[in-house]
Amino acid sequence: MSSKLKEFTERINQYIDEIELVRQPEELYLPVQYCLSNGGKRVRPLMALLGCDMFDGNIEEVIGPAAGMEIFHNFTLMHDDIMDEAPLRRGKPSVYKKWNSNTAILSGDVMFAMAIEHIAKSPSSHLKTILDLFNKTVIEVCEGQQYDMNFETLDKVSEEAYINMIRLKTAVLPAACLKAGAIIAGASEKESSLLYEFGENVGIAFQIMDDWLDIFGDEETFGKKTGGDIVANKKTWLYIKAFEMANENQLRDLRNAFTNRIFNPEEKISMVKNVYLQLGLEKSAIEKMEEYNKKAIKLLDEIKLPDKKKKPLRELSHNLLHRKI
Amino acid sequence: MSSKLKEFTERINQYIDEIELVRQPEELYLPVQYCLSNGGKRVRPLMALLGCDMFDGNIEEVIGPAAGMEIFHNFTLMHDDIMDEAPLRRGKPSVYKKWNSNTAILSGDVMFAMAIEHIAKSPSSHLKTILDLFNKTVIEVCEGQQYDMNFETLDKVSEEAYINMIRLKTAVLPAACLKAGAIIAGASEKESSLLYEFGENVGIAFQIMDDWLDIFGDEETFGKKTGGDIVANKKTWLYIKAFEMANENQLRDLRNAFTNRIFNPEEKISMVKNVYLQLGLEKSAIEKMEEYNKKAIKLLDEIKLPDKKKKPLRELSHNLLHRKI
Repeated sequence: MSSKLKEFTERINQYIDEIELVRQPEELYLPVQYCLSNGGKRVRPLMALLGCDMFDGNIEEVIGPAAGMEIFHNFTLMHDDIMDEAPLRRGKPSVYKKWNSNTAILSGDVMFAMAIEHIAKSPSSHLKTILDLFNKTVIEVCEGQQYDMNFETLDKVSEEAYINMIRLKTAVLPAACLKAGAIIAGASEKESSLLYEFGENVGIAFQIMDDWLDIFGDEETFGKKTGGDIVANKKTWLYIKAFEMANENQLRDLRNAFTNRIFNPEEKISMVKNVYLQLGLEKSAIEKMEEYNKKAIKLLDEIKLPDKKKKPLRELSHNLLHRKI
Repeated sequence: MSSKLKEFTERINQYIDEIELVRQPEELYLPVQYCLSNGGKRVRPLMALLGCDMFDGNIEEVIGPAAGMEIFHNFTLMHDDIMDEAPLRRGKPSVYKKWNSNTAILSGDVMFAMAIEHIAKSPSSHLKTILDLFNKTVIEVCEGQQYDMNFETLDKVSEEAYINMIRLKTAVLPAACLKAGAIIAGASEKESSLLYEFGENVGIAFQIMDDWLDIFGDEETFGKKTGGDIVANKKTWLYIKAFEMANENQLRDLRNAFTNRIFNPEEKISMVKNVYLQLGLEKSAIEKMEEYNKKAIKLLDEIKLPDKKKKPLRELSHNLLHRKI
């Protein structure tokens, strides 16, 4: 990792570590502390700082809202884990498992308020713009989560609807972070919007890569078993394309596997993975990911700044898509 | 109700009715619509408008944040009903009962974002102040809800801790509404803080009255059965004082009733109510309520404005405490 990425990540961790979390009642704040100190790569606030630094802004002016975006992100994880019944988060018990659902609801709510507390530290001349951007983003992230939950009970989801869902659920938040940084640095509407679209495309590419890794990733490198999405019947890019492309036999296999007629998880994974391989999806998912990555790079190229200004952000998105951080 | 209270309430309802709620995905927004259209007296936004009007401010400048406070209030109800397992809200099924907990969590979250959307409509010169006031209030309301949940499992709660809990859970929001109105109208820090404290005291008085009505209220007038708090083992002002003052026999009755050794609800209510009456709590709760009401009136008197300016607010708080609205 370049020294700038490292330096900025350290600054973000320092800022977040300094947030006063030993407050009363402790039943409310202990889960917040647990959640915020549970690692995480701080990618979103890092994007806010990079967006600012690219345009020669002062990163100290964006550190507050950057942390606000990170706190908001962690809040969504706390509530999503209840809704998705996810027992683990970053290898540790999720808040609703370690405590209970009520705790995860209420501690999540207070985190949302804390997020706005830090968003409110934006320079006053940009506060309204950043706050509006943040609200729009929060609403879209909620919409994305709702679409994701809706998809669980739908038989058929189009590729377009899937891409829109991951755009809302995953991509708009890093995009907003980049844009917030650019705005605070005084970038024009055009430049900051290009950066936003760059972030959206990187976010979508990232999620498709995530879907790919869940099936084809190296278990040793990533330290987790593959096939989790298949076991959970999750509608991923691979799932959707497979149903779109499958012939009669393959369709029968997919249906058998995903309607839980196959009870052994290993068998289920291998059955679905086989169809994915037959359909060439291992390769086409990577191509799809690269398609969004290329769109992103093209958008970044359009921003009128010397190339060296864009280098740290290029590095970050490269590392993200190739899972080097 | 005076024509000003009526006029302002109508303006608030009109503003809230005009909020675009027919959005996609409808699974997310239908519960929001259901919740916001489910009546409610709009007391909090009314206080914001009155706080502004008192100081000759333009109520159109405060209507946005006033609605934001009301949306936030309704969001807390949506999440509280999950935590408190409350099946009914204003006589209709609560959101988590009509749909499910996940829906109530996520639709609540999006309401929180919508609340900030309207808070952000504060005049720009006051935005930072109003936003900070709102955040502080949200955090306190979450703390109040946590204390309330903590009390459920505590044997003994002091009167002081109870008053602090209801201050946080119930009183700081109307107080913040009044203060926001005053700030936007350009009132001084001193005057707007007096109004805030007035709101806190009225809020506490209101909650003690609520506790009283649950036991001693007229079932016909209020259209609901008395004793609900006793059946639910809720720690109210009456409960706390009773345990503080009871002699040995009374203590035994209270313990028998509240440890659910008495299973028949009617019997349980009558047993507890008897002790309350023996201890003179029917009267002393009213006195306690009046104590906070008097403090409130004194604070309002300190505000340097002609008496007729304060009249609508006096009327509103009188109506609230005597349950005429």
